[in-house]
Amino acid sequence: MRILGIDPGLNTTGYGVIEISDGEISLLEGGVIRAASANDALEVRLSLLYDGIIDVLGRFSPQAMALEELYSHYEHPATAILMGHARGVICLAAARSMVPVFSYAATQIKSALTGSGRASKVQMQQAIAARLRLKELPQPHDVADALAVAICHHWIAASPIMAAVRAGQCVTPKGHPRRIGRTGK
Amino acid sequence: MRILGIDPGLNTTGYGVIEISDGEISLLEGGVIRAASANDALEVRLSLLYDGIIDVLGRFSPQAMALEELYSHYEHPATAILMGHARGVICLAAARSMVPVFSYAATQIKSALTGSGRASKVQMQQAIAARLRLKELPQPHDVADALAVAICHHWIAASPIMAAVRAGQCVTPKGHPRRIGRTGK
Repeated sequence: MRILGIDPGLNTTGYGVIEISDGEISLLEGGVIRAASANDALEVRLSLLYDGIIDVLGRFSPQAMALEELYSHYEHPATAILMGHARGVICLAAARSMVPVFSYAATQIKSALTGSGRASKVQMQQAIAARLRLKELPQPHDVADALAVAICHHWIAASPIMAAVRAGQCVTPKGHPRRIGRTGK
Repeated sequence: MRILGIDPGLNTTGYGVIEISDGEISLLEGGVIRAASANDALEVRLSLLYDGIIDVLGRFSPQAMALEELYSHYEHPATAILMGHARGVICLAAARSMVPVFSYAATQIKSALTGSGRASKVQMQQAIAARLRLKELPQPHDVADALAVAICHHWIAASPIMAAVRAGQCVTPKGHPRRIGRTGK
């Protein structure tokens, strides 16, 4: 099982690919996709981002893509709308590669990794390093955030309650993964 | 000269293709691209939208794509963020088809068509019908809005001051077309 986590941005998009084998999580690759120049037209930057995501999807063939939820950035509408553009292109790349997309709230991601929805950045980095048995804290923050959402997806997808949800034995409780676009909010 | 105007939306995207020949504007096609179902996952809807835009671009080979500006929908952040996803995919389709994208503020579009930045919907429909010599008011509103931004692009791109801007003889004044992504706001 491979999971691709993404931290979307127009100028810098972080990604992290993890693999789960015999219950152990390991890091396959973390990196950033950068726009050639922040002065490039929006459509040019989106095109480079799309190519970058398609490249990662092609090299690792993950079974799932995980992203932070749509509505986490209300306080900064301009950033959120631009991030929406990047996110749209990233989701398109997943659809074209037949990879399902899952989204999680920022608090869910923090809870999954540290047990607290209010964990600090450093606590998150330490939790990621511990789960992936890294010798150093993951850097830069775009990659750390991408790895966090990938680990969160694994944690939630592998939980017994989610196995029951997948088997149709219970209804998805609030706070559990939802396919994006179906959140209805 | 052909211009494709787009009114982006996740469930319904309006488009309108106009042609300018000997100073006369005519309507080539107006229509909507609809998601198969509003319940489909976001990435599925984005993929259908992308296919729809690529189809229109392929059939008409426009020289420009025109859209309403990024920041016109601040009052409704949830809608604006979702619209950002659709807009990202639309811009990507333009980039992949080597079609430059231009964006205009809602008030600019209204001014270009009616002389007033506060024109009503009906006034806008009447102005579109007059410019394109239509026998009926354009419907639905997605198509009318798409045609309006296309006509706005023609109006501004064809103005003498813009010819001077293109020739590098003067700096783009405030309120004139800007390539999206360079607005800097």
